[in-house]
Amino acid sequence: MTRVDEHVAPDATVTGSALARALFTPAAVALVGASADESKNTARPLRFMRKHGYSGRIFPINAGRTEVMGLRAYPSVAALPEAIDHAFVMVPGRHVPEVLEQCAARGASVVTVFSDGFAELGEAGMAAQQALALRAKELGVRLLGPNSIGVVDVHSGAILSVNAVLETDTLHAGGISVISQSGSMLGALLSRGAARGLGFAKLVSVGNEADIGVGELVDLMVDDSATEVILLFLETIRDAAVLGPALRRARAAGKPVLVYKLGRSAQGEALAQSHTGALAGNDAAVDAFLRKHGAMRVEMLETLFEAAPLARRYATAIPALDRNPRIAVVTTTGGGAATVVDRLGLADVEAVAPPTAFIEHMAARGLKIRQTPILDLTLAASPAQYRDLVEQMLQSDWCDAVLCVAGSSAQFHPAYAVRPIVEASAVQGKPLLAFLAPEAGQSLTLLQEAGVPAFRTPESCADALACLFRAARTPLATGTPPEPVIWPAGLPTHGDLSEFEAAAAFGELGVPIAPMALVQPNALQHAVPYPVVAKICSRDILHKTEIGGVEVGVRDNEELARAVARLVDNAGRGAPAARLDGILVQRMEHRLLELMLGYRHDPLVGPMVMLSAGGITAELHRDVSLRPAPVSLEEARDMIGEVRSTRLIRGFRGLPRGDVDALARAIVDFSRLAVVQGVRIDEAEINPLFVRAEGVVGVDCVLRLSATPDAA
Amino acid sequence: MTRVDEHVAPDATVTGSALARALFTPAAVALVGASADESKNTARPLRFMRKHGYSGRIFPINAGRTEVMGLRAYPSVAALPEAIDHAFVMVPGRHVPEVLEQCAARGASVVTVFSDGFAELGEAGMAAQQALALRAKELGVRLLGPNSIGVVDVHSGAILSVNAVLETDTLHAGGISVISQSGSMLGALLSRGAARGLGFAKLVSVGNEADIGVGELVDLMVDDSATEVILLFLETIRDAAVLGPALRRARAAGKPVLVYKLGRSAQGEALAQSHTGALAGNDAAVDAFLRKHGAMRVEMLETLFEAAPLARRYATAIPALDRNPRIAVVTTTGGGAATVVDRLGLADVEAVAPPTAFIEHMAARGLKIRQTPILDLTLAASPAQYRDLVEQMLQSDWCDAVLCVAGSSAQFHPAYAVRPIVEASAVQGKPLLAFLAPEAGQSLTLLQEAGVPAFRTPESCADALACLFRAARTPLATGTPPEPVIWPAGLPTHGDLSEFEAAAAFGELGVPIAPMALVQPNALQHAVPYPVVAKICSRDILHKTEIGGVEVGVRDNEELARAVARLVDNAGRGAPAARLDGILVQRMEHRLLELMLGYRHDPLVGPMVMLSAGGITAELHRDVSLRPAPVSLEEARDMIGEVRSTRLIRGFRGLPRGDVDALARAIVDFSRLAVVQGVRIDEAEINPLFVRAEGVVGVDCVLRLSATPDAA
Repeated sequence: MTRVDEHVAPDATVTGSALARALFTPAAVALVGASADESKNTARPLRFMRKHGYSGRIFPINAGRTEVMGLRAYPSVAALPEAIDHAFVMVPGRHVPEVLEQCAARGASVVTVFSDGFAELGEAGMAAQQALALRAKELGVRLLGPNSIGVVDVHSGAILSVNAVLETDTLHAGGISVISQSGSMLGALLSRGAARGLGFAKLVSVGNEADIGVGELVDLMVDDSATEVILLFLETIRDAAVLGPALRRARAAGKPVLVYKLGRSAQGEALAQSHTGALAGNDAAVDAFLRKHGAMRVEMLETLFEAAPLARRYATAIPALDRNPRIAVVTTTGGGAATVVDRLGLADVEAVAPPTAFIEHMAARGLKIRQTPILDLTLAASPAQYRDLVEQMLQSDWCDAVLCVAGSSAQFHPAYAVRPIVEASAVQGKPLLAFLAPEAGQSLTLLQEAGVPAFRTPESCADALACLFRAARTPLATGTPPEPVIWPAGLPTHGDLSEFEAAAAFGELGVPIAPMALVQPNALQHAVPYPVVAKICSRDILHKTEIGGVEVGVRDNEELARAVARLVDNAGRGAPAARLDGILVQRMEHRLLELMLGYRHDPLVGPMVMLSAGGITAELHRDVSLRPAPVSLEEARDMIGEVRSTRLIRGFRGLPRGDVDALARAIVDFSRLAVVQGVRIDEAEINPLFVRAEGVVGVDCVLRLSATPDAA
Repeated sequence: MTRVDEHVAPDATVTGSALARALFTPAAVALVGASADESKNTARPLRFMRKHGYSGRIFPINAGRTEVMGLRAYPSVAALPEAIDHAFVMVPGRHVPEVLEQCAARGASVVTVFSDGFAELGEAGMAAQQALALRAKELGVRLLGPNSIGVVDVHSGAILSVNAVLETDTLHAGGISVISQSGSMLGALLSRGAARGLGFAKLVSVGNEADIGVGELVDLMVDDSATEVILLFLETIRDAAVLGPALRRARAAGKPVLVYKLGRSAQGEALAQSHTGALAGNDAAVDAFLRKHGAMRVEMLETLFEAAPLARRYATAIPALDRNPRIAVVTTTGGGAATVVDRLGLADVEAVAPPTAFIEHMAARGLKIRQTPILDLTLAASPAQYRDLVEQMLQSDWCDAVLCVAGSSAQFHPAYAVRPIVEASAVQGKPLLAFLAPEAGQSLTLLQEAGVPAFRTPESCADALACLFRAARTPLATGTPPEPVIWPAGLPTHGDLSEFEAAAAFGELGVPIAPMALVQPNALQHAVPYPVVAKICSRDILHKTEIGGVEVGVRDNEELARAVARLVDNAGRGAPAARLDGILVQRMEHRLLELMLGYRHDPLVGPMVMLSAGGITAELHRDVSLRPAPVSLEEARDMIGEVRSTRLIRGFRGLPRGDVDALARAIVDFSRLAVVQGVRIDEAEINPLFVRAEGVVGVDCVLRLSATPDAA
């Protein structure tokens, strides 16, 4: 299995602008397996390119014909009279390797493989795919797919795709680019967006991502002048090491990235694995990864494209607020506005009533409004007054965005409550958006054409607005990353560490661990102050307590001798095959609160650090915060705030306060496991970590390195 | 403030079928305030009725004209030449009382008041509204509104409404009736549903519900032969005592009731209060109320109408499952199907792979399918095979419903993946439904016309399916309700009870309470076995521990004497004005788990019983279950299962088991507070309630009756 931090950059033969040219604006393309039968889907790319104005040269490859839809056809790529930039391959999977060789010989920079029969079929298919990708790399050819429904450049009409949605007579060109791990959803998003008047730039189905992945494509889109906003439909993440930096570049370039990712439920997650042959990841880890790198993950499918105009226009203008966002809501349907505001409440976005000064300001302008969080203007204002109110709000300082909700008039009388929104939208600055309660396609189009983000459902509207402000609240970290940590000499470099060794490793990172000594049954001398805990120390015994491997409250040397005898006896009976390193003598520690600090290498998005409630609380009540590791002190503080149980040491009901500063420092230090060099850490845990009035202290340590030393 | 259990049945003059006739199929109507200016909304009802074929007699009332749109107009209702059944009143609110008198005089059974200026304005408006309602009752006239946008009977064309959506040229008649607390959302739902080809029966905007409320209207719809499914858009609940039984009648009659209710967030809840002048309720209580009475509460606005065809066709056919529902999923878009399945996972609805026998069965019929939870037929099956697969699934026993998800072909090639669904839908039995991933209006219409429930978004599709099975799992309780409980003689009948009195009251209901005695500082004799707890007993001291009013671990008479001296001293200093009943001597109790049992009279939906985690857990982690009180033993067991903390006494990690049976009985007995007669209970609490290996025992009791004795 490939791990994300091993991601190998593709052979440098074709990347960047050269790759973008071959992918999106090729001068000559081959359609391998193009049918002359118009009812076949393999006939579609040629038809689509003609319909949508592709001006390059097209070479149909068809072994049985000399002509396809009026174009000269060739029996093979090898038989082509000139070089091609890009081939779209629609032949059965078993023929793809041979086609690849021919494409390379004819100078193709990119081969897009529609054919299936690869990783999506399981192990045998995976082997075929790896061989294909390896060979492409040797040949200096970039591979899109296999199992890709193709690539579309709306502006140039280069449509190397069989997606049925492209049958449409008009493709509206615009600034939205889509990268999708589902081919058919690429079409679904295009058709839904197009029906709403949204214009698209580039559409890419990545298929199995044997070579070109989502991350590299995001990078290309950042440099693409036609792309203003990037939408990702994801089933998994295969290239976190490339995707993370690409997302950050996009954010820095002011091109928002909106993400819909499957896997909110365990069922959805399991499905993505079986469907894509992907590894099992943790949805919360993916969430934290996307947030850290500045992408906006939406909850609902329609939000993905409905939020695009909102993000495009306003994402860079939103300040990072250290309070809940405040929204001014104007409506001609109280109930309709409430459907959005109710959902916004779930995301901590507040509908606010105007301040008295603003009410007076509007009264002076001839409009009487009430001091309520929803301003219902039904029958109470003329269109001119409606417009004036929205304009004044957009220029006021008591709200962070203005939401207009239109009622039944939006369906037949847009002049009343929709046109004023359009007119007011000329005022720059804070976000202005609209939700239309009735079925009102024309009004939606009117708003869209005027550049006002408009929404069909209250849920999508609230989802988008919450996303926008949430992303702004998570500034891209600017601090310098921590220095790499050299693995301490003398500690094992693979396999499970003993508790003593794990404690030593954590101690090296700076995490406070309870004072301890490793003694032998026949040599019990130690300098740990009593009372102590005595524990069996063995890398082969995972659950010490279950075999009677822990003795607590040992008060002196004499008690220690007796405790050790019992421990050795218990271990001999409970785990006869285990190798014993000795007995761990550890100072008994007191605490205000018990937490758990964990580290895991998430298969999708890499190193994660996790803080959670300790003990039974962790098992009964989900109370956890996680972040990609390493974390800054600021991120560590945010994590502490997200774990509800830490309220107990932050001034809850007069309980004594714990040392939150020390806890934050311990999280930061522990998270440096992610920058350790020389070994590969699979998993680590301090459970429990005790928080005290002064300082924190870890009292049980687990650290698992990868099983083989060469894996690092 | 009116409490729900005081709800007064309206004067019996016009109810039931007579009311339905006057509301929906009046023979003669007056339009009071009808304008001749077509641009005015007061001109709309007449235009609407003409457009949509109302065949009764219409009398415009307009003080300034003798003719309105070709009809003879009258200066007042009093001037009408004949009796009317129903008047729609559009004049300013201050004129409404006078119009009401005239309507009564002209024989109107119902007056629908569009005019505003009543309860929605606050206290002054509320007084005007109450006066209006009282006078209507005296006159024997039923009132719809005020602040109602009107009432529509699609079948008869009786449109006493100004809603702009009715400008539409065609109103499709069908079996869906809508009752809405938001006038404009009534229009929004109609327009959205109509755009999808749904047919409607009756639409009612209830306005402020001064008289006719949602519950009574549901009752009318149950008896209405044109209504097959009932949709409610709710901002609050004003008539729980009528609504509950009406919902149960609807369920018994096989007419599903779908509910969208605002108030999921605290912000939405607060809004509904200020917007409607309603009381603050608890959303979880509303949820429990609706579920108990068999209504299906949807999460998303579009689900409300999209789920209607699904509920209408299948609600009565779904068995109550004692396991998660299992869904067979067939698709031509793996990614599209996953968007629904992911959401279904969040609602514990499982996508299941077909069993081997079924795979063999289909292979014998010529179709090769894989054993995966989503059957992706893209390019792998002919339309005839697709249809056959769906038909076979509908007749199989390994799934509870069949979900078809169509990909891009649904937009331009419905014959491929949509038509087969339509054809297969002839097979009766388990639910068949469809989600279309692309924009595909025609295919949606095709499915709708064929009676196949179809969905535009994955979220709404999952929401609807989850609702359907959830409702089936909650059978309407059939047991006999508990006998009324007479309030024990000797206990106070109003105000706060002392802990000793509260304990006595709970004990009377059968709830086990720790043995206790009330002693006086100068007379400490008691029969409670030591060790005991000694507590100040005073109805004036709410938080005993804060003033040093509790002494634990008292081991004998001597220690008791010293403890009592301290208690009296502390009370004298901490609460000098408090009346002391004495000292409560209570046996020290042991426990496996600490819970909290609560009772509250929810302002919207009446008596609720609540079980939650005890102590700090309750404050940090929401871990609570609630139900309308009283509850059955079965409901009590469900509540225990819903509180995560109870896992600790149900075999968690080898921990000792608690007496779950006794806990369930205690919940049942405690919930009988709801049937106590002679007093009105505002709030009650046993906190903590100790669960032991054998039995449960309450150790701290609170009971608050209404402040005034005559309120019961």
